[in-house]
Amino acid sequence: MNQTNKSKRKLRLGVVGGGPDSFIGPVHRIAARMSDHYDLTAAVLSSDPEKSVRYAADLGIDRAYADWQGMISQERNREDGVEVIAVMTPNDTHYPIAMAALDADMHVISDKPLCIELEDALDLVKKTQSTGKVLCVTYNYSAYPMVRQAEAMVRKGDIGEIRQVHLQYIQGYLADSTDEPGWRGDPIKGGPSLVTCDIATHAYHLGCYVTGLEVEELMADIGTSMPGRTIDDYMGCLLNFENGAKGSMWITNAAAGAEHGLSFKIFGEKGGLEWHQENPNELRHRRLDGFEQILTRRKDGQLYPEAERAMSLVIGHPEGYHDAFANLYKDVAETILAREKDPGFAGHDFPSVWDGAKGVNFIHAAIASSRNKAWENCRLSLTI
Amino acid sequence: MNQTNKSKRKLRLGVVGGGPDSFIGPVHRIAARMSDHYDLTAAVLSSDPEKSVRYAADLGIDRAYADWQGMISQERNREDGVEVIAVMTPNDTHYPIAMAALDADMHVISDKPLCIELEDALDLVKKTQSTGKVLCVTYNYSAYPMVRQAEAMVRKGDIGEIRQVHLQYIQGYLADSTDEPGWRGDPIKGGPSLVTCDIATHAYHLGCYVTGLEVEELMADIGTSMPGRTIDDYMGCLLNFENGAKGSMWITNAAAGAEHGLSFKIFGEKGGLEWHQENPNELRHRRLDGFEQILTRRKDGQLYPEAERAMSLVIGHPEGYHDAFANLYKDVAETILAREKDPGFAGHDFPSVWDGAKGVNFIHAAIASSRNKAWENCRLSLTI
Amino acid sequence: MNQTNKSKRKLRLGVVGGGPDSFIGPVHRIAARMSDHYDLTAAVLSSDPEKSVRYAADLGIDRAYADWQGMISQERNREDGVEVIAVMTPNDTHYPIAMAALDADMHVISDKPLCIELEDALDLVKKTQSTGKVLCVTYNYSAYPMVRQAEAMVRKGDIGEIRQVHLQYIQGYLADSTDEPGWRGDPIKGGPSLVTCDIATHAYHLGCYVTGLEVEELMADIGTSMPGRTIDDYMGCLLNFENGAKGSMWITNAAAGAEHGLSFKIFGEKGGLEWHQENPNELRHRRLDGFEQILTRRKDGQLYPEAERAMSLVIGHPEGYHDAFANLYKDVAETILAREKDPGFAGHDFPSVWDGAKGVNFIHAAIASSRNKAWENCRLSLTI
Amino acid sequence: MNQTNKSKRKLRLGVVGGGPDSFIGPVHRIAARMSDHYDLTAAVLSSDPEKSVRYAADLGIDRAYADWQGMISQERNREDGVEVIAVMTPNDTHYPIAMAALDADMHVISDKPLCIELEDALDLVKKTQSTGKVLCVTYNYSAYPMVRQAEAMVRKGDIGEIRQVHLQYIQGYLADSTDEPGWRGDPIKGGPSLVTCDIATHAYHLGCYVTGLEVEELMADIGTSMPGRTIDDYMGCLLNFENGAKGSMWITNAAAGAEHGLSFKIFGEKGGLEWHQENPNELRHRRLDGFEQILTRRKDGQLYPEAERAMSLVIGHPEGYHDAFANLYKDVAETILAREKDPGFAGHDFPSVWDGAKGVNFIHAAIASSRNKAWENCRLSLTI
Repeated sequence: MNQTNKSKRKLRLGVVGGGPDSFIGPVHRIAARMSDHYDLTAAVLSSDPEKSVRYAADLGIDRAYADWQGMISQERNREDGVEVIAVMTPNDTHYPIAMAALDADMHVISDKPLCIELEDALDLVKKTQSTGKVLCVTYNYSAYPMVRQAEAMVRKGDIGEIRQVHLQYIQGYLADSTDEPGWRGDPIKGGPSLVTCDIATHAYHLGCYVTGLEVEELMADIGTSMPGRTIDDYMGCLLNFENGAKGSMWITNAAAGAEHGLSFKIFGEKGGLEWHQENPNELRHRRLDGFEQILTRRKDGQLYPEAERAMSLVIGHPEGYHDAFANLYKDVAETILAREKDPGFAGHDFPSVWDGAKGVNFIHAAIASSRNKAWENCRLSLTI
Repeated sequence: MNQTNKSKRKLRLGVVGGGPDSFIGPVHRIAARMSDHYDLTAAVLSSDPEKSVRYAADLGIDRAYADWQGMISQERNREDGVEVIAVMTPNDTHYPIAMAALDADMHVISDKPLCIELEDALDLVKKTQSTGKVLCVTYNYSAYPMVRQAEAMVRKGDIGEIRQVHLQYIQGYLADSTDEPGWRGDPIKGGPSLVTCDIATHAYHLGCYVTGLEVEELMADIGTSMPGRTIDDYMGCLLNFENGAKGSMWITNAAAGAEHGLSFKIFGEKGGLEWHQENPNELRHRRLDGFEQILTRRKDGQLYPEAERAMSLVIGHPEGYHDAFANLYKDVAETILAREKDPGFAGHDFPSVWDGAKGVNFIHAAIASSRNKAWENCRLSLTI
Repeated sequence: MNQTNKSKRKLRLGVVGGGPDSFIGPVHRIAARMSDHYDLTAAVLSSDPEKSVRYAADLGIDRAYADWQGMISQERNREDGVEVIAVMTPNDTHYPIAMAALDADMHVISDKPLCIELEDALDLVKKTQSTGKVLCVTYNYSAYPMVRQAEAMVRKGDIGEIRQVHLQYIQGYLADSTDEPGWRGDPIKGGPSLVTCDIATHAYHLGCYVTGLEVEELMADIGTSMPGRTIDDYMGCLLNFENGAKGSMWITNAAAGAEHGLSFKIFGEKGGLEWHQENPNELRHRRLDGFEQILTRRKDGQLYPEAERAMSLVIGHPEGYHDAFANLYKDVAETILAREKDPGFAGHDFPSVWDGAKGVNFIHAAIASSRNKAWENCRLSLTI
Repeated sequence: MNQTNKSKRKLRLGVVGGGPDSFIGPVHRIAARMSDHYDLTAAVLSSDPEKSVRYAADLGIDRAYADWQGMISQERNREDGVEVIAVMTPNDTHYPIAMAALDADMHVISDKPLCIELEDALDLVKKTQSTGKVLCVTYNYSAYPMVRQAEAMVRKGDIGEIRQVHLQYIQGYLADSTDEPGWRGDPIKGGPSLVTCDIATHAYHLGCYVTGLEVEELMADIGTSMPGRTIDDYMGCLLNFENGAKGSMWITNAAAGAEHGLSFKIFGEKGGLEWHQENPNELRHRRLDGFEQILTRRKDGQLYPEAERAMSLVIGHPEGYHDAFANLYKDVAETILAREKDPGFAGHDFPSVWDGAKGVNFIHAAIASSRNKAWENCRLSLTI
């Protein structure tokens, strides 16, 4: 036996949120473990100090806090303090936590939407720029290998100039009139429109990410299809992209029997691409005058490096939601670690604070369009 | 051997259009033969008398005409004259041919759209009512057994009150900038908007047929996604149905690599239904809180009679486009023949002149909405 | 109007079998009408003369007979007598009817299996050769366009030398212990093994047709999976092909909930092909080191002419069982008609009497193998 | 902040094998991390001591060994020595490593096959019984939630008595004649038949696991479909199950263009189940006289607890290969930990040493059958 001199540098991670009964809490923690780049050393898992300690101990986490203010203020002063904060709390708290973390010289992994108000989003953009810290918004669906492949194919011209885009996000968890959205339905905690803040923002990011295009203007119809319901559970939306491409979105969390139907179908001048989150290991590629091709995950040089980087398994071995989420953690960590050696390292491809700000801008543009029954500008100015 | 006294009464059919190089001509003629209710006895297959005769002879048709006026005026005076006229000519001629045929006491099977102008459509509605003749518009996709099943399931409440509707019709035959639409692209012959008159009207009918609902108002974006193209090859559309249901449409014939992607996905308070024309023998049925079910064509009492009536093959033996088209011919003939015995017979379920008029109204409402960038009323008044 | 001189030569068709309650009767008659090459002029629809007349009259058929002997003897002497006999009776009558028809200088379209005894099959081979008449066995699944495409791809080397073959035919109509096979279960009328004579013979033909290979030897396990059942409803079979390729078959009509799951999956040295009868418009093409391609029906020069010939509809318009069956009628008719002008015409591609004889040989080889629990030779000698 | 008293008991894990370039090494390590029940504290990653240290350090593993003998002998004497050994070495070393680990009072997680010789397998069965240690064979495909659901459905009678079983495992990694199997093709290291030891054993376990049945006898054809190849890359196999059910297998790693097509399709007296590893989140359920149902992963009480236990994500969020593999690690750990509190705890459902021994027995039975061209008994006696 030889005692190794563990050369593996791991980032110290603190999490805010994700206590018992949370869906997304375990997802973040598994993602961190899969990436193998983090030590989960601190956590705020409950506002009750006793509970926070107990849950943290159950999870094998050393240091438990009762609030994020305490965690950030104490950890920033430790030599072994947390370096990355992952935020998985209700939407209204994303902004203050992220700002405080950046101020404390910590990197941030934040659930979407980045925050609720556009000016707060732009604040975070500026703060990130001034601190040089990483802020990743967990638009996790863009981290599936076949989505990365689609993005690369579009960017490299494989389907030519983009012409048409269709996005769907069809869920069923509010399909019954008695279904309850929890804090997501509270306009203070969740934001001004449930369906928009909760899932439309994912689809919007996905569409912009894959096409590499900005939406110039949009025409939205937001509301509910259920008599008497006061929360928004439906969005229909027409899109005009900066390059003249046309698009549409159908977003709902009130489709009876639907599961998690996030998908895109896009067409360019030379072909089309189609992807469905529920079957994420396939990407359909239609070619003008050619037969449809089913691209699958494989690491043999046939996919673009951007896709290969996002895979951890070989051909035919399905990857899933956890694997994609772990890619965000991996890309954030490998960006941070690479910059320790090379401060000019450009960074890996994960959704940035700017992507987050565009998502917040989209939320407000869509709501305004629906309210005014009119087309609304959707470009976020770069002059901030 | 016994010479039979052929008891089978067949309807004498005359066709206008469908000459050589026509796609839809053979479809009509095969449909008539499959239904086994027609004798194809007269035809206008070319405006050149010699050609019309030659083509007719090649097809085994007795009487050839060089124009529809001649056919109608001569056939109306024969004892063995045609009883049903099938119209498969450019859109601008549907109205005069159908009017003349109805005036000559003939039944009409007309390609869609019923005609181009709304007032002409309403004229045809009135004329059909006054003559008591049958007029069927070939919205053939509604004649697939599994579409009939979907309509019956909705009508009988299997998925509850309809909440959300999404319609797609994605074709690729104009995806290349050099692709040419022929007469369909000529505003005189094809109508004021190619994509709208050619295929959106199919999707609109399908959505209204399956849901049993009228569209109250719509917001359309019609145009092209291709720089420099002057014909319409794209429509995005938001829909509000009479009962508060929400909907959207994505219609194009310029999607590179797409084939014939007509589909609907609808959700009601108790479940959802999904159907794709390219795989027409399946109907997906999602139930609130239940697993997805794949309903297939079968004649064992498990489907509604409306669907069973539309099938000619047993379980697992796929039916296709020809079989569905033949259902229209069958339903028209069996309606006519039943009324010979029982004049009060209500008629089988095929797209009527009123469906045709609603389709024409939709075309104009969508164009107006797109031009005005505003929501437009889409209800066709019943007071005609 | 111009009275045409109908130039279309139609073949006079007589049918034996296919009375009321028959599934396959309407299929044959629709196929004949779709092809537009036949006049159905005589029929034996019941052994009760009165019923045969009544059914024939209902179907619009001129001449009704009470037995096939009468039909053949009378029709052969008429100037307008039938030229083609279609046989859709229980299996034990195929041989005498076909022999009599050939003797009467008529062409034959016979349901499968060609007959029950191998020597009878070889008799029919010889008789067909000596009379020069066409005999087509309705292995109809080989007439789907995408099956024709697969056959052409293999023949032209697109997937290289064939290495592995798997065939399935999974039906459910005998899955319940109380299900009754009718005459098919009667060893006299249906043959010595229900599953083998009824459906395995289809799968066997399909596999040999697509690969262009003969089976050298086979090892079968035939019987039932249901305690107490005396008919055969299951066959498992291992195959060795003449070129060293390996194969297997899974055939049953007792799979609870199955529909009509005939399929092949084959692999050659350069790729593979997969086709499912229930979704017949698609052919999956896997390439060594490449992505899977979905070939679909299209008439734009991208498929082989053999496939294009078998299509009557353009891209994205699904064809089905009727369309494929009609291809057999079309190919038979166009062969007969072409030989009227050019006696040396080689003939279109439909399953021949020799294919039928090989199918009968397979039935007996499989039964012997299963009985002896041993590999059995399956080559039918060409020296007849 | 409160320093927690980490209450989480983790098992100390040592791995043998899985060095750089290994596919399965990272899989095991990720599985251990996902389950969150292990500390990976020792490893043999190379027989070169220096390399073993370096790789271990790169992976953040404390103690590196150059051979398993050293690891086991040293770790057994440490207070903080490894408690579980995971074996991912060539097949011929499974037996000695597992025996040594069990003798050292360690639990074992072993890759399949359990070992090469049947008597060694039976030795391991006895040794496991005598030591009371856990031995899990990584038949990982049985750990997918929908496979667990299938097993529970069969066991609870949802599809009735099993009648027919078909298993496929279709890979392409040896499809090119120049493809090289590495040590798997070496009869000493990999065992007497590549395709049999490498993948057929997976399919065999899956079939027995889901049906809950033993195979009574089998008839195999093992070899290659490629001229000149000396390794086995093909197995066709007929199966007779103990209850009279019939089955077949098609297994190959030489199918050009195939990926990882492990699947089962089974039918019982009341219905059928179908599952494909490449799309593992779906289970097709056919019911006698009913429509096909697609069961999906969901944690809302609609699946059996055995399936729910195996899921870590909610409806519509796909799980993959890593998630299933992690279930084995979780089930092993939770069995060990539960027995620390309750020595009589029966254990969770993972493939046991007995399953491993049956797999070894199958390998030899299949080889004997193929060699003798005869049906061979396949029951492993319980009297060991």
